[in-house]
Amino acid sequence: MHTDRHAASAALKMLNPAAVRREIRSGNHSGHTAGFVPGFVQANVCILPKDWADEFLLFCQRNPKPCPLLAVSDTGNPRLPELGDDVDIRTDVPRYCVFHNGELVEETTDITGLWRDDFVTFALGCSFSFESALIESGVPLKHLQRGECVAMYVTNLDTTPAGRLHGKLVVSMRSFVPADAIRAIQITSRFPNVHGAPVHIGLPQLIGIGDLAKPYLGIGVADVAPDEIPVFWACGVTPHAVVQAARPPVCITHKPGHMLITDLRNSSLASF
Amino acid sequence: MHTDRHAASAALKMLNPAAVRREIRSGNHSGHTAGFVPGFVQANVCILPKDWADEFLLFCQRNPKPCPLLAVSDTGNPRLPELGDDVDIRTDVPRYCVFHNGELVEETTDITGLWRDDFVTFALGCSFSFESALIESGVPLKHLQRGECVAMYVTNLDTTPAGRLHGKLVVSMRSFVPADAIRAIQITSRFPNVHGAPVHIGLPQLIGIGDLAKPYLGIGVADVAPDEIPVFWACGVTPHAVVQAARPPVCITHKPGHMLITDLRNSSLASF
Repeated sequence: MHTDRHAASAALKMLNPAAVRREIRSGNHSGHTAGFVPGFVQANVCILPKDWADEFLLFCQRNPKPCPLLAVSDTGNPRLPELGDDVDIRTDVPRYCVFHNGELVEETTDITGLWRDDFVTFALGCSFSFESALIESGVPLKHLQRGECVAMYVTNLDTTPAGRLHGKLVVSMRSFVPADAIRAIQITSRFPNVHGAPVHIGLPQLIGIGDLAKPYLGIGVADVAPDEIPVFWACGVTPHAVVQAARPPVCITHKPGHMLITDLRNSSLASF
Repeated sequence: MHTDRHAASAALKMLNPAAVRREIRSGNHSGHTAGFVPGFVQANVCILPKDWADEFLLFCQRNPKPCPLLAVSDTGNPRLPELGDDVDIRTDVPRYCVFHNGELVEETTDITGLWRDDFVTFALGCSFSFESALIESGVPLKHLQRGECVAMYVTNLDTTPAGRLHGKLVVSMRSFVPADAIRAIQITSRFPNVHGAPVHIGLPQLIGIGDLAKPYLGIGVADVAPDEIPVFWACGVTPHAVVQAARPPVCITHKPGHMLITDLRNSSLASF
């Protein structure tokens, strides 16, 4: 039975984006999406009522590295045609987190019953896309080889505020030997819509990271070998932390790792 | 008198490349060319007899980062039309160094009397071009601000040999705060014809540099501040050191800093 489910999951991963969304929509997949449909963009999702959405849009505009916008819905409209003709944000994410006043109150696989006419959906680029480009270029990613979450840290760098939204930049860290660090900067510079170039290299203390062995919320394992340099990218956890800290009455996000799979190809995001 | 010469030199710097070459050709300028004709490519020059030139061409092909070829002359022909219709390599470099068997035997401002029918000229890109792009982008270069030569080091990295030509890679080092180091990698990646992206960042001991305070031949001052990262580029001194170590019977180069000014614009070398 376990083997059957494993095989079914492996087959599902290789379907096209619309087919995977159909499986998710019909309740046949509610797990994470890491490694699903290689080559296609997966998106972070944040749904807010209109009276918070305008500020969030401004926050994203002012902080494009942690908040690279791929698409924003019309108010009350659950469709995101830029990401796929059939996309319905009420059903197409495998697992959602529902927050009230910044507190997690529910996890669910369908938010049709929670949908409101004043909801606006934001889809943001995610580091899965640039990690895919790194792997294709032969730049190793140790956390993926170990099947672990990337290490993340809260920095002492302020984001640019927008209304009620403000907070510190959260970064992800990947370490490389110097030649690969240079390649990683070159490759991710091509992908501004999925966090783009690093925001920092080496010298973690300069951005308020005192101990690489103590990542944010204990998530991710940091192991920087003596012949490696830590490289830091703006992280999509930043808007999540900023929004929940502002305690909007309602906010719905994807569960981390359980992303919206889009029809956009990673390579279509390359800027040159 | 000193003031007059200074003013004349300042005026000369701003002429177009062909006009500066005319001044050099007629013997009116035999000094260095740093800061001359901003925006235009200056080239390293190496002249070898044909029976060494084929190996040197192969060496450059195999080591494009330290030896970025801009143009190679026909055998015995002192013209380099790719670099300027009027270029005559016998007269258009402000000051030449003549080597016999790897030893400097003469400095001169005109090699017309030394020219041979079997001479081949190689013009190689120089870091002046990418430094110009860095400055235009607001990335500070401390050695230029101090009016000093960049710091250079012999690494433990082997170049790829070609016949009698082999040796270690020589690198130049510039240090930056991390955000500028990232920008410097992005910007210089656009200029593969003038050394291109760095070959190394941070961790000098990994490439055999034990002490940054002791640069190659004592040239250049290294001052890496606590909030900076050293960034290393392949250096045009590499082919010079490799050729002289092989002791060809004759080799003529520009004197360091006294470059061939070409009609190519720096921006024309940008790869994207």
